[in-house]
Amino acid sequence: MALKKSPLAPEAFPDFPEIRGVRFASGNSGMRYKGRDDVLLAEFDPGTTVAGVFTKNAMPGAPVDWGREILPSGQARGLVVNAGIANVFTGAAGRKTVEDTAAAAAQLLNASPEQIYIASTGVIGERVPTEKITNILPRLAEDLSVDAGEAAANCILTTDTFAKGAVATAKVGDKMVTIAGFAKGSGMIAPDMATMLSFIFTDAAIPALILQQLLSEANEKSFNCVTVDSDTSTSDTVLLFATGRAENEPPVANTDDSLADFKHALLGVMTDLAKQVAKDGEGASKFIAVKVTGAESDSAAKTIALAIANSPLVKTAIAGEDANWGRIIMAVGKSGEKADRDRMSLKIGGILIAEDGSRAMSYREEDVMPHMKGQEIDIEVNVAVGGGSSFAWTCDLTHGYIEINADYRS
Amino acid sequence: MALKKSPLAPEAFPDFPEIRGVRFASGNSGMRYKGRDDVLLAEFDPGTTVAGVFTKNAMPGAPVDWGREILPSGQARGLVVNAGIANVFTGAAGRKTVEDTAAAAAQLLNASPEQIYIASTGVIGERVPTEKITNILPRLAEDLSVDAGEAAANCILTTDTFAKGAVATAKVGDKMVTIAGFAKGSGMIAPDMATMLSFIFTDAAIPALILQQLLSEANEKSFNCVTVDSDTSTSDTVLLFATGRAENEPPVANTDDSLADFKHALLGVMTDLAKQVAKDGEGASKFIAVKVTGAESDSAAKTIALAIANSPLVKTAIAGEDANWGRIIMAVGKSGEKADRDRMSLKIGGILIAEDGSRAMSYREEDVMPHMKGQEIDIEVNVAVGGGSSFAWTCDLTHGYIEINADYRS
Repeated sequence: MALKKSPLAPEAFPDFPEIRGVRFASGNSGMRYKGRDDVLLAEFDPGTTVAGVFTKNAMPGAPVDWGREILPSGQARGLVVNAGIANVFTGAAGRKTVEDTAAAAAQLLNASPEQIYIASTGVIGERVPTEKITNILPRLAEDLSVDAGEAAANCILTTDTFAKGAVATAKVGDKMVTIAGFAKGSGMIAPDMATMLSFIFTDAAIPALILQQLLSEANEKSFNCVTVDSDTSTSDTVLLFATGRAENEPPVANTDDSLADFKHALLGVMTDLAKQVAKDGEGASKFIAVKVTGAESDSAAKTIALAIANSPLVKTAIAGEDANWGRIIMAVGKSGEKADRDRMSLKIGGILIAEDGSRAMSYREEDVMPHMKGQEIDIEVNVAVGGGSSFAWTCDLTHGYIEINADYRS
Repeated sequence: MALKKSPLAPEAFPDFPEIRGVRFASGNSGMRYKGRDDVLLAEFDPGTTVAGVFTKNAMPGAPVDWGREILPSGQARGLVVNAGIANVFTGAAGRKTVEDTAAAAAQLLNASPEQIYIASTGVIGERVPTEKITNILPRLAEDLSVDAGEAAANCILTTDTFAKGAVATAKVGDKMVTIAGFAKGSGMIAPDMATMLSFIFTDAAIPALILQQLLSEANEKSFNCVTVDSDTSTSDTVLLFATGRAENEPPVANTDDSLADFKHALLGVMTDLAKQVAKDGEGASKFIAVKVTGAESDSAAKTIALAIANSPLVKTAIAGEDANWGRIIMAVGKSGEKADRDRMSLKIGGILIAEDGSRAMSYREEDVMPHMKGQEIDIEVNVAVGGGSSFAWTCDLTHGYIEINADYRS
C-alpha cells in the first residue's frame, strides 16, 4: 500500500552530519519490501558507550530481550536493524535469529556479539528468515560510510510516510560535539517507554552510566510524551551511542556542569524526533499539543495529558475541526487523576473556553474556529489542584488510520 | 445526521411487559431533536426501592451528583430523562436545572423532590433550557401508562441506531416477578462503572440495601465489561427500581436462597443490554467477545480483556477481517498485568493460533478466515500465570466511528 506523505511532514530531512566514529550502510534483504532498503548496519569505533530504553510491553520481541541483556556492559560496536518483520512472539527461533545476526555482524566488525545491538520492526508473530539478513551483511560491511545517515534513516521505516531526523551541536567542556539521530514510528505508538525505534549518535565522550541517565531523563520528556493510538509496541527501542571521538574531558557525574549544554541539545534532538513521530501518526491531518498544569504532580499531569491525547472522541472531533471541548473535559475526568471540576479551566489555541465549572462567559465558538482549521492544535488545561505540569503530543484520528490499519498485512 | 441501523441489531425490540407499579410517558421537548421524543417521565408506586451505580469519571454531570445525593434514602417515586444535552460542566445553572426538574416532577407525582431521579445524555458543556423539560412534564404526567416501555426506551437514545430492551421473569420465594429494562449508549462507552444510561424495573419487593448489592454485583459482570472507545462518559447511570407489587416475601440478605433465581435473571437482563450496547457501538460492523483465562486474578483478567477490547489496532484489524493476531499479543503485553509470553495461548473462533511463545504449528490462516468474515468474533487468551478469568465485549473500529464522531455536533 502506497501511503501519501503526511501533510505535517517537515519540508526536508535535515542535513545529516558526519558523526566521528559512526558509519552506516543499508541494503535490501528481499524479506518483505521491494524497491527500497530494509536492513541497516551501523559500525561504531572501539570505545563507544551506549545507553538504551526499551518497551514496557510484557510481550517484548527477541531483539528487546537481547538489548536488555547486553546493555549492562555499556559498550557497543555495531547495530543491525531490519524493517518488515518485528521478530516478536517467535519463541526460540526468534532468539536464534538475534544470536545469529549478532554473531555475523560481530565477525564482520571484528567485535564480540554482545557488542552488537539488534532492532526489528514490522509484523508480529512471523519468523524472520535470518539468512536474508546475514547474507547481505558482508556487502553492507564493505559499504560502511560516514555520510550515509539519511539512507539509514529511510531504511528502518514501515508505515512511516517520511524519514525523521534531527541534529544539534553542543559544547562539552571546551569541545564542540555533534548529536544526530533518527527515528521511525507511525502506528502502535504509545508512551510506556520509547514507543518506536530511535537511534541517536554523538561523538562526545560520556561514560555509559552517565549516558544512561541522560537518555532516561530526556526520554521521559520527549518520546514518552508521544501517543498515536495508545497501543504500546512490543519492539520500542531508543539507543544512544557515544563514540568519544570528540575527545572531550569525560564528565564524572550526571550533575557535571560541563553537561548542561549537551543535555539541552539532547532533549532538543529527542523532542524534535518525538514530535515528528506524532506528525507522522497513521492518517494524521493535524498535530495536537496538550499541556496540563495545576495537577497534583508532574506525573499526574502527564496521565491527564495522555488521557486527552488518547481519547478517540477528542481526536475525531479535532479531525472534524470541531471545538467539541466537552470531550476534553470528559477525558480529564476519565484519567483517574485529581482535578477540580468546579475550578478547572480550558483553553484551545490560547482562547479561554471553560472556567470555574462551566463555559467561559467570553467564549464564542467562532473565535476558536480559525485555530481549529489550522494544522497544529494547542490544548491547555489547568486542573486547579496543585503545581504539577506536563504535556503530550499526538495527532487526530481520521479515516486514514482506519484505512492503514484495516489493511496492513494484506 | 441520519445513522444507518447497526447490522448487529437484534431483529426486534422485545415485547416489553407491564411492570406492576411502573408507568411511562414520553414527549418531545423541542430542545434539540425534531420528529422524535426526547424526554421520559416514569412514575413508581409509593414504596418503590432503588439502587444505582454511576460513572467514575471525575467530571460527572449535575444529574449524577444529584443521584448520588438522593440514593442513600433508597426510595424512588419518579425518573426524568432527557436526550440531547447532557447537563455536564454546566456549573450552578446545571444544578438548578436538576433541582427545578425534580421539583416539577415531584409536584406532579405527589412526591418529594428527593424521590425523583434525573438523567441526561448528549452534548457536554451546553446549558439545558430547563423550561423545555418542565413545560412538558404536566402533559407527560397525564399520559403515564403501564404499557409505554418501548416508547420510553426510544426516547432516551442519542447516536444509538436501535432501542435496547431486555426482559426476564424469576421466582422470588413462591412469587413470580418480572424484570425488564432498557439502555442507551453507543459512543463514549468504557467501563468504569456503567458506561451508558440503563434503567431496569421489577415488581419484586427487595429492600434497597440488598437491591444495591444485587445491582453492583451484576454490573461488574455486565455493563462494566463493555467498551466501545475507551472513553468514559460523564453521565453513566444504571438505576434499578423495585416496586414491590409482586408482594413476595422480601429477602433479608443478599445471600437469601430465595434470591438465586432473581440474581440469575437480573444478570441475564443486564448482560443482554450490555451486549446490545456493544453491538450498537458507533460504526460497529462486528461484535467482539474477548475471554481471558489463566490470569493472576479475575480483576487482572478483566484489565487484559479490556486492553484487547480497547486496542485501536486490534479493532481495525477485525474491521478489515484480518486475523492479525500479533496485535492481540501486543495488547496483552501493554495491559500492565502479568502474562507468560512463553506459555500463553491464543484462539480466535475456537482455532488455536499461538501457544508456547510462538505461532501454533497447526495454524493455517485460511482456517480462521470464515470466522473473521462473520459478525461475531471470539477471542480467547490464556495468559498462563494463574486462575483468574474475565471477559469484555466490544465492536470493531470502522470508518463509521470516524464519520459519526468527526461530525457529531454539526
